[in-house]
Amino acid sequence: MGMQTLYQKVNADRIVRRIEELAKCSMTKKGVTRLSFSRESEMANELVAQWMQEAGMTVRRDGLNNIIGRYEGKWPDAPVLLIGSHLDSIIEAGKYDGVLGVIAAIEVIQTLYENGMRPNNPIEVIGFCDEEGARFHTTLLGSRAIAGNLREEELFAKDANGITLAEAMKEIGLDPFQYHTAARHPKTILGYLELHIEQGPILEQMNQACGVVSGIAGQSRYKFQVEGLVGHAGTVPLPLRKDALAGTAEMILAIEQIVLQYENLMATVGKLSVFPGASNVIPGLVEGTLDVRSIDDGTRRTALNRIIEECKEIAKQRGLVCEFTKVMESPAVLCSSRFIDVISSVLEERKMKSVRLVSGAGHDAMALASITDIGMIFVRCKNGLSHHPDEFVAAEDIKIGTSVLLDVALKLTS
Amino acid sequence: MGMQTLYQKVNADRIVRRIEELAKCSMTKKGVTRLSFSRESEMANELVAQWMQEAGMTVRRDGLNNIIGRYEGKWPDAPVLLIGSHLDSIIEAGKYDGVLGVIAAIEVIQTLYENGMRPNNPIEVIGFCDEEGARFHTTLLGSRAIAGNLREEELFAKDANGITLAEAMKEIGLDPFQYHTAARHPKTILGYLELHIEQGPILEQMNQACGVVSGIAGQSRYKFQVEGLVGHAGTVPLPLRKDALAGTAEMILAIEQIVLQYENLMATVGKLSVFPGASNVIPGLVEGTLDVRSIDDGTRRTALNRIIEECKEIAKQRGLVCEFTKVMESPAVLCSSRFIDVISSVLEERKMKSVRLVSGAGHDAMALASITDIGMIFVRCKNGLSHHPDEFVAAEDIKIGTSVLLDVALKLTS
Repeated sequence: MGMQTLYQKVNADRIVRRIEELAKCSMTKKGVTRLSFSRESEMANELVAQWMQEAGMTVRRDGLNNIIGRYEGKWPDAPVLLIGSHLDSIIEAGKYDGVLGVIAAIEVIQTLYENGMRPNNPIEVIGFCDEEGARFHTTLLGSRAIAGNLREEELFAKDANGITLAEAMKEIGLDPFQYHTAARHPKTILGYLELHIEQGPILEQMNQACGVVSGIAGQSRYKFQVEGLVGHAGTVPLPLRKDALAGTAEMILAIEQIVLQYENLMATVGKLSVFPGASNVIPGLVEGTLDVRSIDDGTRRTALNRIIEECKEIAKQRGLVCEFTKVMESPAVLCSSRFIDVISSVLEERKMKSVRLVSGAGHDAMALASITDIGMIFVRCKNGLSHHPDEFVAAEDIKIGTSVLLDVALKLTS
Repeated sequence: MGMQTLYQKVNADRIVRRIEELAKCSMTKKGVTRLSFSRESEMANELVAQWMQEAGMTVRRDGLNNIIGRYEGKWPDAPVLLIGSHLDSIIEAGKYDGVLGVIAAIEVIQTLYENGMRPNNPIEVIGFCDEEGARFHTTLLGSRAIAGNLREEELFAKDANGITLAEAMKEIGLDPFQYHTAARHPKTILGYLELHIEQGPILEQMNQACGVVSGIAGQSRYKFQVEGLVGHAGTVPLPLRKDALAGTAEMILAIEQIVLQYENLMATVGKLSVFPGASNVIPGLVEGTLDVRSIDDGTRRTALNRIIEECKEIAKQRGLVCEFTKVMESPAVLCSSRFIDVISSVLEERKMKSVRLVSGAGHDAMALASITDIGMIFVRCKNGLSHHPDEFVAAEDIKIGTSVLLDVALKLTS
């Protein structure tokens, strides 16, 4: 049986069934809420372990509760290809974010196994324990532990009930101070491959089931404050006003104009609070957030400087005072050109456009990039919607995405 | 002794001392909080009654707890000139809003009394019980009762503790169902004259201690909603976004542009809430308020229609949906041209510019306008600031304002 026909044996029904079953491991009825190290995540890990065994894998959990299934290759000591995604969720999430990547990876192995195929290199499927960070407000715990980048002080991060990560780990039978045993040596790894829903609208706009990710955007998060002068809405004529909200409105439009001048730049004012916030009072203070992302770190920094400069100029013109404070910054992470090429060639073999996408969201692949080559396949989701109970991926797209993942995995391990 | 020298006998120190004493009748240490029908307002009424008696007036309280001092004229049955303002305050208010007008009116009478002067018409000084409406969320209770425009159902308005106006009235010994006895017959009234702080920055900008009010602006209050589509700040490129906040920003600037095209128009977006309000989520919904005021009702209505039309057009261009809902509307009230002329002539006699101001805020004069001629004098306040503990009026301006009030009252009653 050749590769050309194997991918057609991917069982989309089985994937959908498993996604639905995992969705039941939720703390909320509305959407999926599966925080890390919870009873629900333990239930999910048990199901995943069982499916990994059905697919011919040997299963273990590592020192940070990542669940790992290993499918031996013809060359048992060769570097291992890791395929995976995460099993935790935000509060009231959809069913596909993370989960699709894990279940598709299991399906890849199960298809090989049921058809008596064995790659040269071993393949390990990983269900990461904590990508979203919804419980401890720390992201990528599982993948950073594998990359050896977790710091001991993070064990003392607390959840909403004051329980530390260390305590949560003990609760499920892990020794928190053995977290470093999860780390993998770079030489033993061939690369990391992840299939994930796009969480954006581009594939849908381009009428494509999947695309290849060129990298994960770097990100700057700022908070800002615009200070003006409170006044009575009926007594201060416009030329005498120092309206903090009108000034902020001008800034938001200036940010839009700057974004339009760059390729691959996103900027968002997502949060805005207006004080004192009464219908008959001219706003004296506005507080907001600015999120700027680009796959090109230079573009991000240049645009950010221009945004801050223009906002300060607008403030000056209006007699306002505007301050920006950095909250977070992370550089862009590029996918390996080899992985990009392999994924592109598979897409082209299937007569799909090799659409290149930048991931604006963070992924476990970001953490793995510090120890190995990474590659990502994005699958179209309905209306680009994610982090929402209505998140949806069509079974047909799941089948195409998984079959691409299968062929890419085979090409990388043959 | 002629009028030219009488006004110089106005005792500004006494006015300031009385304002400071009234400021102590406050429920809060920060600023002045004197809600209507409270223990503090009873204390204030007692002080005011005492000062009215000192100024040669006979004192009574009417059916709605307005405190009224009467200074007889040479013609006891002639129509009476009412002079006054309000004694209640908002929460954490300044010392001058309302109070200055009452204390200045008492000073006018006391100056006449101490100098053995008696006008032709009787003059009554009124301290209105409830202009701000901070307790029962109903404005102008006292002056509307006098104008005969209070409605019985308003007796059942409740304060924050669930106490009705009727109950609060009983508590201080008034029969609530006798509220209509406060009403005055139009034929018995010569007119209503009020001195008030400007609560805006125009007199300060023009370097004038006081000015004449041409009228009280009409007002429209709307709430609005802009609906877009929530999205991930990292995955949806600008051209595919339906950012409710960016759309609202464009609307706020469009409103500013419309305001600049009219004289005597104010428009304010004072309250704005952004949903879901997370730094990494494109805003899907914005809710806000719009306050539009003008002395010209036609201008207000035309501008409002243009604002709503342009906002809807902006929404359409951006794929957003925008809805406006009317919350309140009140027409403009004009001051009597006779009162305006008299006030202007006094200002000119004193070598002041006869600055004409539109009152953007509501005043007791609005209610009185339905039964008699009204006139208002505005006094400069520091930085145009009002409804704030830092509200301030210089003693010198108090003296000038009160002496103008004295001369105007004399001209109207001689």
